[in-house]
Amino acid sequence: MSTSRIRKEVDEALLAFVDRQRPALLAISDDLAPLLSALDALLTGGKRLRPAFCYWGWRAAGGEDGADGADLVQAAASLELLQASALIHDDVMDSSDTRRGQPSVHRRFEALHGAQSWPGDAEAFGAGAAILLGDLCLSWSSEMFETCGLGGDRRRRARAVYDLMRTEVMCGQYLDMLEGTRGEATAATALRVVEFKSAKYTIERPLHMGAALAGARPDVTAALTGYGLPLGIAFQLRDDVLGVFGDPAETGKPAGDDLREGKRTVLIALTLERASAAQSTALRRRLGDPALDRPGVDELRSIIEDTGGLAACETMIERYLGEAERALRTAPITEEARRALAELAVAATARST
Amino acid sequence: MSTSRIRKEVDEALLAFVDRQRPALLAISDDLAPLLSALDALLTGGKRLRPAFCYWGWRAAGGEDGADGADLVQAAASLELLQASALIHDDVMDSSDTRRGQPSVHRRFEALHGAQSWPGDAEAFGAGAAILLGDLCLSWSSEMFETCGLGGDRRRRARAVYDLMRTEVMCGQYLDMLEGTRGEATAATALRVVEFKSAKYTIERPLHMGAALAGARPDVTAALTGYGLPLGIAFQLRDDVLGVFGDPAETGKPAGDDLREGKRTVLIALTLERASAAQSTALRRRLGDPALDRPGVDELRSIIEDTGGLAACETMIERYLGEAERALRTAPITEEARRALAELAVAATARST
Repeated sequence: MSTSRIRKEVDEALLAFVDRQRPALLAISDDLAPLLSALDALLTGGKRLRPAFCYWGWRAAGGEDGADGADLVQAAASLELLQASALIHDDVMDSSDTRRGQPSVHRRFEALHGAQSWPGDAEAFGAGAAILLGDLCLSWSSEMFETCGLGGDRRRRARAVYDLMRTEVMCGQYLDMLEGTRGEATAATALRVVEFKSAKYTIERPLHMGAALAGARPDVTAALTGYGLPLGIAFQLRDDVLGVFGDPAETGKPAGDDLREGKRTVLIALTLERASAAQSTALRRRLGDPALDRPGVDELRSIIEDTGGLAACETMIERYLGEAERALRTAPITEEARRALAELAVAATARST
Repeated sequence: MSTSRIRKEVDEALLAFVDRQRPALLAISDDLAPLLSALDALLTGGKRLRPAFCYWGWRAAGGEDGADGADLVQAAASLELLQASALIHDDVMDSSDTRRGQPSVHRRFEALHGAQSWPGDAEAFGAGAAILLGDLCLSWSSEMFETCGLGGDRRRRARAVYDLMRTEVMCGQYLDMLEGTRGEATAATALRVVEFKSAKYTIERPLHMGAALAGARPDVTAALTGYGLPLGIAFQLRDDVLGVFGDPAETGKPAGDDLREGKRTVLIALTLERASAAQSTALRRRLGDPALDRPGVDELRSIIEDTGGLAACETMIERYLGEAERALRTAPITEEARRALAELAVAATARST
């Protein structure tokens, strides 16, 4: 299937799944409707990257479209609910105001509280609702995966990947937060976070899940790691650059939002390693300032460029992307999968969408 | 198996599961050790009520001890990880300081932050770590359930119960929070919350899960609802009474903690329905005051007693418990299961443990 076709089928599978849950929720209470609309709004956005990698892991290992392919799409789409959960909880933890160009879920419920003039604490209500909706998405992800229709030993092996991936991404998120609060991340410690929080979660494990569902041989799984892990690192480094320099219309977040949140990314670590005392002081002083305005963002952007931090990060992206491309060239997979994965590699690390 | 024997086997299954995860986490980073110790501490406590009901649902439907019994214990124990997740997230949402007689998970990580003198925001770090550990427990619960060893159609049917239960408890929690923030719960709306957040989650669904894993006939499942649903309501009403009047040594929470958190329980609704204008004003003024001290707790306790709210709640507990006991008498289950479920009904609604 083409990328746009995969996206369309994943969208349809997600909508069908949520539509199966909808009547059960509304039968409990009409008061649950805002949970469903918040989820509908969130699921409208997103590039469906993880399902695409899951699909191509399946195809790379010999899986085909058709009846099994529809089941595979459901399993792949379940990754979007996992991602929705991660985004919702992440935004609570980071106190982010926006996501995918819309208010974040906790802000949405805070606004509902205000609009209804309820007497309690609006911020606590927003955070609580977001925690619960994230929990619901996490539960629904496993429900959607487990009921995908692909059974037996293949699902058992894919489940082991799915379970490992969930553990890895949650541990990676914790380490990311830890580096953020300690404020002493080096490029090396930041890369370790990237590996678990992002590279495995976004690319390597989705590929492995699809491959396991197709009954992949070990050499195929290993080749997908050779491609997916460096590509996943390059993907996250690109995301870090976009978090500072990206166009809000494309990132769905305000300009320089990662700076305001004080994220201790590889880009920041590379910058600090290269900064003069004055540059370092200026960067550390403003990084994580929730009130950072546009001139403040511009000042920090200049430091990241002037130190050579940005150039060093771009060099790393090229290096990891090159590594992924080399691994892909010799991978024991079909030519069709090789071409599609080469295109996905470019799309996942592009400077703009 | 006896209640103490079930408890022991569930404890062992939980420990074995966490011990299988431990090396994977520590291989990612030693920095993850505090997540494991927080979970170890939390899992030390708890009455293992849900696994006990799951076990007796299995036995009631003809399941036996032995090899399949060990697999059933793993499935039953997975409910404790779901409960751990719910408690951890609940304590974040309620800003609770204690759980099971120890600091709540978010306070524990807040303290770690302080002890390490990290520069970032300790409270945000604590909440973030708790959100992530709750997510990990939720993931691990489904992993533990899915890998229990009982396969085929029985697990498929039990999974449908498990999935429904997760949706119900999360929706129930949202409605609970909503009633709390709106501050206008009647006994009827509070009872609806109790049904989903507590009665189904704690008793009816665990019974159904065990029964489904044993391949229960529909009449057995229906009889377990007849017993489990009213018992679950009686259980939560007892918990509400203990949340106001209970001994901290037994509840693991400070005296009157539910009053400090402003929980809109059936007990509070029954009290407000019976209160004079002065009593109502006094109760509404102090309910949910985080600074409520011991004399304040005593004042509110007096109002709950003097209005007859407490007596009305005790009457409801008796009525629901009686309903459960009548349903149990005619349930098409073994005498052994009937006896065990009768004992569990008493234990789940006892005035003290």
